Amino acid sequence: MSVLPSNEAIERAVGEAGGTLVPAEDADAIVWVDPRDPEGLRDALSRSPARWVQLPFAGIERFVAAGVIDPGRTWTCAKGIYGPATAELALTLILASARELPRHLRSKTWIRNADLHATRRLAGGTVLIVGTGGIGSALAEMLEPLGPRILATNRSGRPMAGADRTVAIGDIHELVPEADWIVLAAPLTQETRGLIDAHALKAMKPGAWIVNVARGGLVDTEALLDALREGRLGGAALDVTDPEPLPDGHPLWNMENVIITSHAANTFAMAIPDLRELVKRNVKRFAAGEELEGLVDVKLGY
Amino acid sequence: MSVLPSNEAIERAVGEAGGTLVPAEDADAIVWVDPRDPEGLRDALSRSPARWVQLPFAGIERFVAAGVIDPGRTWTCAKGIYGPATAELALTLILASARELPRHLRSKTWIRNADLHATRRLAGGTVLIVGTGGIGSALAEMLEPLGPRILATNRSGRPMAGADRTVAIGDIHELVPEADWIVLAAPLTQETRGLIDAHALKAMKPGAWIVNVARGGLVDTEALLDALREGRLGGAALDVTDPEPLPDGHPLWNMENVIITSHAANTFAMAIPDLRELVKRNVKRFAAGEELEGLVDVKLGY
Repeated sequence: MSVLPSNEAIERAVGEAGGTLVPAEDADAIVWVDPRDPEGLRDALSRSPARWVQLPFAGIERFVAAGVIDPGRTWTCAKGIYGPATAELALTLILASARELPRHLRSKTWIRNADLHATRRLAGGTVLIVGTGGIGSALAEMLEPLGPRILATNRSGRPMAGADRTVAIGDIHELVPEADWIVLAAPLTQETRGLIDAHALKAMKPGAWIVNVARGGLVDTEALLDALREGRLGGAALDVTDPEPLPDGHPLWNMENVIITSHAANTFAMAIPDLRELVKRNVKRFAAGEELEGLVDVKLGY
Repeated sequence: MSVLPSNEAIERAVGEAGGTLVPAEDADAIVWVDPRDPEGLRDALSRSPARWVQLPFAGIERFVAAGVIDPGRTWTCAKGIYGPATAELALTLILASARELPRHLRSKTWIRNADLHATRRLAGGTVLIVGTGGIGSALAEMLEPLGPRILATNRSGRPMAGADRTVAIGDIHELVPEADWIVLAAPLTQETRGLIDAHALKAMKPGAWIVNVARGGLVDTEALLDALREGRLGGAALDVTDPEPLPDGHPLWNMENVIITSHAANTFAMAIPDLRELVKRNVKRFAAGEELEGLVDVKLGY
C-alpha cells in the first residue's frame, strides 16, 4: 500500500492494520490524503496498479469533477464517519440562531428580555434536514431530546428514522415553507447544486434560518444575499461558502444575522482519530477480501 | 383566588382551571407574578387569609432573603418547569464554546482550520453539572447523544440518571479538575453562594469553561475576572451575572472568551405556555386537596 502524500498518522494506521508501505508503482492500494489535489492523485494512479483508492474525506466532488474517479478501481471515501462531528456543528448553529448568539456576542450592553423577539426554544419549531446520510441521521438523534418536529429529504424519499415526513429531493418545495431551520447535509451533485436558490428562499418561513454544513455550492450565494438584505429570513449559519474561502470584504462578513465558521465541522485534529480507525478497518477488510466501508458510487459521484 | 399584580394570561389560566378571581382579602390562594417585588407580596399577604402562594418563577432567593416565605402557608414555585428551556441554553453555550463561536462571530476574515486550536467535539470531553433538578437532569438527557462523560453534584450526593458519578456539593473539589465544562444549574442558597471562587477556578482544567445558567451569585465575579485575565481557563458563558444586569463598561463585556446572554434562558414569551399549564394544574390540585407541584422547602429556601 501507499499513503500519498506521506502522512505519519495514516501510515502508522496502515502498519497497525498489517499493511506494508511500498511505492505507488508496487501498491495494490493507495490512501490519498490531500483533499485539494486531484491532479496529484491522477499522476500517482498513472504509474500504479492499485485496485483500491481510499479518500479519507467525505466530499469528493473535486475528484469527480476532475474525472479521476475511474470505474476500473474500487473507491472508498470517509462518508459517514464524520457524521456525528458535523451534525454536532449543525446543532450548535441551530441553537446559536435560536438563542440570538450573534446579537449577544456582538453586544457590549445588557439586552432586555423584551427586546429578544427572536429568542425561542427548538420545541415547537420545525427542522428540515436535507440529506439523510451520516450527518442527517446523527443530527436527528441529537435533536430528539430537544423536541422539534423533524422533516427530511433525500434522493429517493426513503423515510429517515426520527423524521415525521421524508420526501424525495425533487419534492423539497412541499416542506420548505414549514421549516424554521433548513439544514443542508447533502453531497454536492448535479442534482443538489444551487438547491437553495431565489425560489426556495422566497418560499421559506419569515424568520427561518439556512444552516449549511455540507458544501457552499448547495446555496446560490447571490440569492441568499438578496434574501438576507430583504430581512425576511432569520439568517444564515454557514460552515461552508461559495466562494470558499470567503474572501475578505465579502458582504456576508458584515451581515448581522450571519454566522460563518470557516469549514471547521471537522478540523484535522478532530478527525484524525476517526480517520485512523476507518483506514485500519478498510486495510484489514481489503486484505481479507471483504466489502469495504464508505464505497463510492462512481455513477452518483458520492 | 387572586392573581397579583393583575396578569391576563395567568388570570385566564386560573379561570380555565375552575378558579374564581376575588380580592386578596377574600382569597384562599394567591398567584404572585412579579419576581422583583417581595414587599408587594408581603403587603398583599398582610391583608389576606391565603393558605397557598404560587410563585411562577424558579429562583425565589429574593423572597427568602426578604423573609416573606412564612412557614404558616403552603408555598409553590415554578422549579422544574423551566428545566428544559434553561438546559437548552446551557447546551447552546457548551456547544458555542466547543466550536469557538465567540471567535467566529467576531471575525471578519476566514480562519484557517490549523488556527482553531480549541475547536473540539463534546465526545471525549467531560461535563460537570452542578445541580441535578429540572435543569441538570434535562441537560444530561440532551448531552447523551453527543457522548461526553457526565459528572454531577447536588446537595445530597444522590446519583443523577445519566451521570458517571455524582457527589455531594461539599465534595465538588473532587470533580472540578476533571471537567471541560462546569455547568451551574443550582439554586442560590447559603451553601452555593460563591461556590465558584478563586480556589475552584484554580483547580479547573486548562481550557475548561464555566457555564452559568442559574444565578450570578454562584460565581465570585472578581475571581472569575482574575482567572480569565490569567488566560488559563477556556472562558465563561454567563446567562446570569453578579452584578445583574451587568453594567455598561464592566470588564466582562470586553473579554474575548466570554459569552453573555442577558438572563434569557426563559424570556417571558417563551415561559408563558408552561407557566399557564403549571398554574392550571396547581389550581385543580388545590381545589381537590391534592399535593401541589413545585412545593418550596421553606427551611432550605428553594
